[in-house]
Amino acid sequence: MPGAQRTRLDTGRIQEARHLIDPVFLDTPLYRCEALEPFLGCAVTIKLETANPVRSFKGRGTEVVASRLADSGSAAAVCASAGNLGQALAWSGRKRGLDITVVASRTAPMVKLDRIRALGARLELVDGDFEVARERAAVIAQRDGIRLVEDSLDLETCEGAATVGLELVEAAPAFDTVLIALGGGAMATGIGHVLRTSAPDVEMICVQPAGAPAMTLSWRNRRVVNTETMDTIADGVAGRFPIPAVLSDLLLVADDAVLVSEESIVAAMRLLLEQAGLVVEPSAALGIAAVLEDRARFAGKHVVTVICGGNVDVDAYRGWIGLPPG
Amino acid sequence: MPGAQRTRLDTGRIQEARHLIDPVFLDTPLYRCEALEPFLGCAVTIKLETANPVRSFKGRGTEVVASRLADSGSAAAVCASAGNLGQALAWSGRKRGLDITVVASRTAPMVKLDRIRALGARLELVDGDFEVARERAAVIAQRDGIRLVEDSLDLETCEGAATVGLELVEAAPAFDTVLIALGGGAMATGIGHVLRTSAPDVEMICVQPAGAPAMTLSWRNRRVVNTETMDTIADGVAGRFPIPAVLSDLLLVADDAVLVSEESIVAAMRLLLEQAGLVVEPSAALGIAAVLEDRARFAGKHVVTVICGGNVDVDAYRGWIGLPPG
Repeated sequence: MPGAQRTRLDTGRIQEARHLIDPVFLDTPLYRCEALEPFLGCAVTIKLETANPVRSFKGRGTEVVASRLADSGSAAAVCASAGNLGQALAWSGRKRGLDITVVASRTAPMVKLDRIRALGARLELVDGDFEVARERAAVIAQRDGIRLVEDSLDLETCEGAATVGLELVEAAPAFDTVLIALGGGAMATGIGHVLRTSAPDVEMICVQPAGAPAMTLSWRNRRVVNTETMDTIADGVAGRFPIPAVLSDLLLVADDAVLVSEESIVAAMRLLLEQAGLVVEPSAALGIAAVLEDRARFAGKHVVTVICGGNVDVDAYRGWIGLPPG
Repeated sequence: MPGAQRTRLDTGRIQEARHLIDPVFLDTPLYRCEALEPFLGCAVTIKLETANPVRSFKGRGTEVVASRLADSGSAAAVCASAGNLGQALAWSGRKRGLDITVVASRTAPMVKLDRIRALGARLELVDGDFEVARERAAVIAQRDGIRLVEDSLDLETCEGAATVGLELVEAAPAFDTVLIALGGGAMATGIGHVLRTSAPDVEMICVQPAGAPAMTLSWRNRRVVNTETMDTIADGVAGRFPIPAVLSDLLLVADDAVLVSEESIVAAMRLLLEQAGLVVEPSAALGIAAVLEDRARFAGKHVVTVICGGNVDVDAYRGWIGLPPG
């Protein structure tokens, strides 16, 4: 990245983060999945972030947050979560004796809410979506005088996620393109920072549901675009108010940001189940959905997609994959 | 292991095997899965062997076989396979330019047969079960003067699988019991050898379907017991003629060998899907099935189970776990 055009992230801190993160979240499987390829028309490598105690990549960030909190003598923290950050922060906090509060939407997947409780965190539910939970978490932090963990805004969350990028770059295969689910932007800016720094020729494409497009619209317009509503099954990436500092970073690292339909997300989930034997949540299917929607763009290329989470309500999942392909 | 009571395996060669195996098969996820625990009444850690290019642990053994073949200037090999060994040998052979023939039963899961072909191996189907395929593979090897790769008999297959054991022992958590699917015995003797050598206090229990009990009956009787027929959905461990040398090793390393019903195997597959988000083939569910059948035995203990394969025919799988047809 030339001159003043620097993200907020720091490569040295990302390297350091690795030593703070429990090894159970690191060095995750990275493998070519040829069974998917006839359906996609390109070479596909999977980076699997679901085979760990919280079934998503979020543990990488919360391990950094919680270890720094514990080192500084803090005893408590609160976060808003669509469900995966809350589970991960609960896990990392429990390990270190921290008192964790998670604020989530009453409409978040039951499995995520149940797991947050099972991991010993205090769970507060709000009426409304993730943005309402964010407001409420900020109020609690101020009221109780405790750390507010803000996903994507707080550098630990981005730099923790960036360790996925280190693992991609070190594997050093001839990837053409990395496809990354885009929500608040922690994973996209984290992995993107590492790619721009260490593998500048690899294309980095963010993928968001057309039903929750705020960050993609913001990236395209180079300014924050909020949306009034959202409507997607990809609960893990559903937000309406992009964070300006995160958008600035994303503008420096992403080569493109694309939107995909709900039908493509479902088709991608089915394909991952049937051809790769992977149970993924909708957000984790976004990369494959992007290929399904634009096979010509990826024809003959080698893409990597990060399977970022696998927490699904079983009944909803049964419904999705029982549907005819999109 | 005291004095003359030694298995055929060698710890030095197992350490060496690691350097012959493509890293994509090594250092697989090992993590506590708390979501399963309320259903099982014990602490459960998963060792996941499905997130690799052939979706089973068999690549560990075939990498050793194929690298030694290539080093010795051999150009070809043949094996009999229930499906997973054949895929893995095809993958390892293709990587090294070896000409691979796989003999399998016409009744093996279609997905396994398709993948063997897709990986460039010559596939020969026989009428009859795995034991008929074994006979045919031996005939081909003799006819063509090429290496016959015999799963469980050939030490490379056992010592490759034994690298799973090294990873368990090095993680060094306080496991009480390791539950291992038992078929021909390569995985059980491999992991068992490492446990007996490096973690003698950890209990090693083999689990086999009651519908294909030959090796378990042999272990219990301390002599080879063949069976006339077999009837199980766990195709990956279904054999009728235990190999004497493998039984001798198993007698030295296993603490117990138990049989489980088909109903328990299906219940375990469902539990792994619904609570752990893992698509597993029936053989990989045997460990969890053993806990389901005898909760009292494992109450309060910490068990590790090796999820050894994930290759399932989608339609059969949908039937087992009660998903609507695709």
